[in-house]
Amino acid sequence: MTNKILLSKAGVSFMLLFIFSAFILFSCEVHIESGVGDDLPSWNEGTTKQSIIDFVKQVTDENNPNYVKPADRVATFDNDGTLWAEKPMYFQLYFLLQQVKDQAKNHPEWREQQPFKAVLEDDRETMKTFQVSDLLNLALASHSGMTQEEFEATVRAFITTAKHPEKNVLLTELVYQPMLELLDYLMDHNFKVFIVSGGGIDFIRAFSEEVYDIPRENVIGTAIQTDFIQEGEKSYLKRFPMIVPPIDDKEGKPVNLHRFIGRRPILAFGNSDGDIQMLQYTDDREGASLCLILHHDDADREWAYDRQSKIGHLDKGLEEAGSRGWTVVSMKNDFKKVFPSE
Amino acid sequence: MTNKILLSKAGVSFMLLFIFSAFILFSCEVHIESGVGDDLPSWNEGTTKQSIIDFVKQVTDENNPNYVKPADRVATFDNDGTLWAEKPMYFQLYFLLQQVKDQAKNHPEWREQQPFKAVLEDDRETMKTFQVSDLLNLALASHSGMTQEEFEATVRAFITTAKHPEKNVLLTELVYQPMLELLDYLMDHNFKVFIVSGGGIDFIRAFSEEVYDIPRENVIGTAIQTDFIQEGEKSYLKRFPMIVPPIDDKEGKPVNLHRFIGRRPILAFGNSDGDIQMLQYTDDREGASLCLILHHDDADREWAYDRQSKIGHLDKGLEEAGSRGWTVVSMKNDFKKVFPSE
Repeated sequence: MTNKILLSKAGVSFMLLFIFSAFILFSCEVHIESGVGDDLPSWNEGTTKQSIIDFVKQVTDENNPNYVKPADRVATFDNDGTLWAEKPMYFQLYFLLQQVKDQAKNHPEWREQQPFKAVLEDDRETMKTFQVSDLLNLALASHSGMTQEEFEATVRAFITTAKHPEKNVLLTELVYQPMLELLDYLMDHNFKVFIVSGGGIDFIRAFSEEVYDIPRENVIGTAIQTDFIQEGEKSYLKRFPMIVPPIDDKEGKPVNLHRFIGRRPILAFGNSDGDIQMLQYTDDREGASLCLILHHDDADREWAYDRQSKIGHLDKGLEEAGSRGWTVVSMKNDFKKVFPSE
Repeated sequence: MTNKILLSKAGVSFMLLFIFSAFILFSCEVHIESGVGDDLPSWNEGTTKQSIIDFVKQVTDENNPNYVKPADRVATFDNDGTLWAEKPMYFQLYFLLQQVKDQAKNHPEWREQQPFKAVLEDDRETMKTFQVSDLLNLALASHSGMTQEEFEATVRAFITTAKHPEKNVLLTELVYQPMLELLDYLMDHNFKVFIVSGGGIDFIRAFSEEVYDIPRENVIGTAIQTDFIQEGEKSYLKRFPMIVPPIDDKEGKPVNLHRFIGRRPILAFGNSDGDIQMLQYTDDREGASLCLILHHDDADREWAYDRQSKIGHLDKGLEEAGSRGWTVVSMKNDFKKVFPSE
C-alpha cells in the first residue's frame, strides 16, 4: 500500500518530468537537427557544394588547423549577378530611369539635355550608346536633392512594385534561391555576412533586410555625399550629387572592405571582373579562405554570359580563378533551383 | 512485488530525469538571474541610472509604445572623454608623437621642419602653440606610408605598453568602469553598439575588441585614404596621407552614422560640443531616444573641465542638453567608481 502510494506520487512526478524533459529535449532536438539536415537543398550534390560545406566545417571546428574565431568570420557577397539577376541590365537602372521621369517636372531643362532627353523620350537607340559617365550623371541628378528618408521611401515604393520586363515578376523575386540558402547557412555558423556592391548603398539597404535578411549596416556600396542639416527641432541628411570615392567596384571593393569592416573576409563571392580585387584580397589573407565566382551559363533558366557581356563582364576573373584555384560555381550544374518561385 | 519493481524502475528513471531537469533548470536560472541583478553596479542610484534602465526597459518591451525592434536598437558612443579619459591630451596624440620620433630616421628633413622639429626636440613651448592643422600634418605624415597590417601592429605595440604621464598606468586602464558596464548592459539587451569618434578609426579598431568588447566593424572614426596594391600573390592596402572626408566630428558624425550604419541611433552618448550633432540626429528620430552627455566634474578622481577646456570643450552641449532635456551624467555624482582598478 505504501509502495503503491509512493509509486503513484512518483508516477505523477515522473509523468510531469517526462513531459517537461521531452519538451526540452524536443527543443534541443530541433536545434541539433538543423546542423544535420541539408542546409543547401537548392544546390546540386557535387564538388562545389562539398567545397562550401567542407570550408565551413573546417573554419568552425576548434580542433581544425583552419579554425577561425567567430569575430573574424567575415563573408562578403557582390549583389548584382551574385545575389540577384542583372539582365538585361542592372536593376537599379530601372529605378534610375523611373526617377528621372518622376523628377522631370522639376527640371524642364532635361527635355533638351542629354542624357536626360533620351530617357524622357524613351529613345532606345540613344540610350544604347550611353557610357558609364552618362549613367553616372543620370544617377547623381536623380538620386540627390532629397533627404535620406525621402530617398528610401522612393526606393521602397519602387522595389515593392517594379516588375522585370522579360520575366514579368517582381525584381525581388529574381534573387537566387541557392544564394539565399548560403547566406542563411553562413549566418547559422556565426559568419558576419556583408553585401559589397558597385550599386548604391542606400538603394540596397532599402530592401536588404527583407529580401536577404542582411542588416543594413552590413551593406557596403557606392555612396553619394550628404550634408547634415539642422532646422529647429528637426535634423536630417540631404543628398547631394557627388560620389563618395571610391566607387565600390574593382580596387574600390577592398578599400571599402577595410573602411567598413576593418578585416579581410575569409569567404568572398562574386560574378564579374569587378569582383576580382575583393577575391584577391580575401585569397591573400593569412589563413584559410574560400573564393567563389558564379558563372552565368544557364540560358534556359536564367541568362548565359561572360566574356562578351558588358554587364556582368567576366573574363580575367575566370583566368584568375583557374590560376588561383577559386571555385567557379556553374549556375547550370550547381543550382538545383535558380529562383525561389521555380 | 510487481509494484516494487515498477517503483524501482520508475525510481531510477525519476532520479535520472530529476538530475537532468535540475541541470537544465539551473542553466535557465543562471540566465534569468542575469536580468534581475544590478547590471550597472558602478553607477550610483539616482535619476541618471534610473533613466537609463527605464529607457532600456521601454524599448525592449513589446507591449510598450516605445518598443524598438532589435534591428533598430543602435547605440553610439563617442570615445575620447566618453569611454576613456582624454586628459591632459587625447591619448592618440601620445601615439602620434611616438610615431614621429620612430619614423624620424627616414625623414631627415623633419629635423628642420615644423611642426616635426618641435616634436623631435621635445620643445614643449612650441608644441603648446600647435593648431589643429599642425596636429593633422603630424598625424597624416606619421600614420601613412605603411600597410594597414603594419599600422595595426604599431598601434598594438604602443597600446599594450604606453603609460599615462600622470596616472602611471596603461592608457587602456583609464577606461570608465561605469561605461564598460553600460556597453555590456546594452549588448545584453540586443543593442548594436558603435563607437563614433573623431579619433582614428584604425587606431581604435586595434584595441576595441579587447578593451570594449566592441567588434572592429562597429568602430567609426576619422579615416585616411588607402590604395589597393596587388603584387603577385600578395595584396594589401597602403595608407597615404589624405583624410577621407568628413572628419568624424561635429556634422561629420551624423554623416558617417548614416554611411556606416544606415539608421539613426536610438541612444547616443558624448561628452563634448563635438558630439552635439550626433545627439541632435538621435534626438530627432521618430520614436523614443535617449541622449546623454558625460560631464567631467570630478577633479579628485579624474579631471574637471567643460567650457574653458580646449580638449573636451563642452559649452553649447550643456545649453542644448538643458533645452532638449538630454541627460547630463555627472562623473562626480553618478559614477560610484571611475576606473576599473579603483
